Amino acid sequence: MIYLDHAAATPVSEKVLEAMKPYFSDEFFNPSAAYLPAKKVAHNYETAKGVIAHAIGAKASDLIITAGATEANNLAFTAILDGQISRSAPRPAGPSARAAGANSCAAALRNAPSQDICPVLYLSTEHDSVRRVAEQCGGQEIDVLPNGLVNLDDLKAKITDETELISISLANNELGTIQPLAEVAAIIREIKLDRLKRGVKTKLLLHSDASQALNLLDINVARLGIDLLTLNAAKIYGPKGVGALYVSHNAKLKPLTLGGGQENGLRSGTENVAGVIGFAKAIELAKEHLNGNRKKYSTWRKALLAELQGYELINKKHSLDSFVVLCYNGIDAERLVFLLEEKGVYVATGAACAASKGVRSHVLKAIGLSDEQIAGSLRLTLGETNTEEQVYEAAKIINTVVRQEQNRLKN
Amino acid sequence: MIYLDHAAATPVSEKVLEAMKPYFSDEFFNPSAAYLPAKKVAHNYETAKGVIAHAIGAKASDLIITAGATEANNLAFTAILDGQISRSAPRPAGPSARAAGANSCAAALRNAPSQDICPVLYLSTEHDSVRRVAEQCGGQEIDVLPNGLVNLDDLKAKITDETELISISLANNELGTIQPLAEVAAIIREIKLDRLKRGVKTKLLLHSDASQALNLLDINVARLGIDLLTLNAAKIYGPKGVGALYVSHNAKLKPLTLGGGQENGLRSGTENVAGVIGFAKAIELAKEHLNGNRKKYSTWRKALLAELQGYELINKKHSLDSFVVLCYNGIDAERLVFLLEEKGVYVATGAACAASKGVRSHVLKAIGLSDEQIAGSLRLTLGETNTEEQVYEAAKIINTVVRQEQNRLKN
Repeated sequence: MIYLDHAAATPVSEKVLEAMKPYFSDEFFNPSAAYLPAKKVAHNYETAKGVIAHAIGAKASDLIITAGATEANNLAFTAILDGQISRSAPRPAGPSARAAGANSCAAALRNAPSQDICPVLYLSTEHDSVRRVAEQCGGQEIDVLPNGLVNLDDLKAKITDETELISISLANNELGTIQPLAEVAAIIREIKLDRLKRGVKTKLLLHSDASQALNLLDINVARLGIDLLTLNAAKIYGPKGVGALYVSHNAKLKPLTLGGGQENGLRSGTENVAGVIGFAKAIELAKEHLNGNRKKYSTWRKALLAELQGYELINKKHSLDSFVVLCYNGIDAERLVFLLEEKGVYVATGAACAASKGVRSHVLKAIGLSDEQIAGSLRLTLGETNTEEQVYEAAKIINTVVRQEQNRLKN
Repeated sequence: MIYLDHAAATPVSEKVLEAMKPYFSDEFFNPSAAYLPAKKVAHNYETAKGVIAHAIGAKASDLIITAGATEANNLAFTAILDGQISRSAPRPAGPSARAAGANSCAAALRNAPSQDICPVLYLSTEHDSVRRVAEQCGGQEIDVLPNGLVNLDDLKAKITDETELISISLANNELGTIQPLAEVAAIIREIKLDRLKRGVKTKLLLHSDASQALNLLDINVARLGIDLLTLNAAKIYGPKGVGALYVSHNAKLKPLTLGGGQENGLRSGTENVAGVIGFAKAIELAKEHLNGNRKKYSTWRKALLAELQGYELINKKHSLDSFVVLCYNGIDAERLVFLLEEKGVYVATGAACAASKGVRSHVLKAIGLSDEQIAGSLRLTLGETNTEEQVYEAAKIINTVVRQEQNRLKN
């Protein structure tokens, strides 16, 4: 098997599973319990959060653990509410907690929000978990350039005094395109200064989904100027069902769910201890091998591009080294996926979730590809399950299958 | 170590972890991916959901997998919205999905809900994850009798034509009290008939949190007349961070988070495959050992009550066999927890989450205990980590510690 779909899912690495194991058995205690073994579990949980936070230049108290990137992205958008719970607030307890609003009190949603009360801008190529929430909030799309990068002029033109949140992923999940977030942050800083001068009190926050980039880029939230950052364990050889949202001092969130008041009252529910321990180990390993992996994937990417034939390269520049997005004109990529699978090579046509719904990729459309080009597009994403040998073998198999398909279409 | 806090947390059983393991490594694929190994994972995930559903007399398609009981409880309350997404609706995709409302579009919550638009009744002894949401919705408490059972007269008196949702846990998390849900359902049926006659179109749903009861009671949603049932893997020797909400045909929910449209569009995010596989194995084992365990815990409970000295029994009747809630008048239970811990016996003073916040238990207050009684209350919950020997040993240690403490107080 040659697995080239690491952007869709990664196996849990052995070291991660080893780190998790004790927390399934001996260290199974509820972190909220009063006795010492439980307090030790609570301590280890916080330490693990610290490790995750440290990897992005933050502190444990800056992180809200979630069940994955989707929940983290959804949680980030609660920042556009008039936050009643500060991230540094103590756990809500007793009657005063009753005042703390939660999205889960669904009654308020009987009357759907109108287009003009959710001042959100989001990149047109964002993942569905950002797009759908942003759409709900009447958010406006920021255009991308044909190279997949955010159109900074379009961004500047669309920011108004009502804009409160801008959401741009660190690296795109279909193309791997790394966005110039530091430049976006600089624009935001300017606008905030200007607002200050003019006495406009609306806050302006930058949210970024870093799911795909966490193990391939050196991320520092302060240096990048990010207020809200989405993290995902499942894409970096950690367990599925675990993610986190980094929350800066500037952002005040509201919980999506209410209950025991865990995660500073912003995400109730007994802590997924094993999951978070695994996440910490995964991020630790990722950081340890960051440079080595980047070099490796960069070499393999070049090898793939040299060995493969008859393709058009879609993500030419500004991409994560592990992403190779190709277009075979006139060929149905869905058939290619099927034919490659028969030869033990697993690839994707677009984002896994979009692909399974039979919807044309909005990302490839946004960068200006024609319907035919989109239909002929393959996404290969390299990862830790691969070897150099596999890369050459995959190129050979893909070339053969594409040739067969081209011949079939000729006849 | 003698662990008597199984209501707070249970270790993942060996068989459960064995069942999960392949899904961390070889079977790690994203269930939404297009190739066969991923489809196999998707199939196994659905099969596991079927096993969980079957255990409560339901089908896989009736379940929404969540990150635990707290999220499931929160999700249940979205049923009081004018649900726009039916549980049987296909995954939202494309522009039409934009109309599907989500709680996560927080904008609508700028204006907090008023007391009169959330027609919810909930038992006064519910867990915080029900209480907080219900409070947010302006919900009204249903009283309990001194024995911990729902006061059915109070329930009947409080149901109005505006009541849409009644939330009563199957078994209480501090007392183990098993509620007469079939009787509640019968009352609801009568009211629905009456509403029908009078042309009142408001729906009336019964939600129940079965977190504590799942491995100790034989549950059948149809027989019990339940519309929404909360399940939790972490309390039945499955992994933390996995739960589910059973949703009947009568109930229409709205998602708490938006994204890729997993779980029928009601709970987006890549599926926690390993977690759900583990949940299924845990529930399978629980059902297999249901009768044996009940008999065992019943015997052990009697042994504890016979061996222990100088206590007042709080949960005299109608309780799960594994719960023993005691009161030692004039003694500080928090000190007892500490002293017992020193001798290797781990118990709780109340619900783990309430206990750690230093808040007096609202449950013990609701059944009419005085502050002094509450301060002297211990919760012992039996489970699979225990042996008969441990039960007798624990009784001996508790007796000794209580005697010492009584002597200390005398001097």
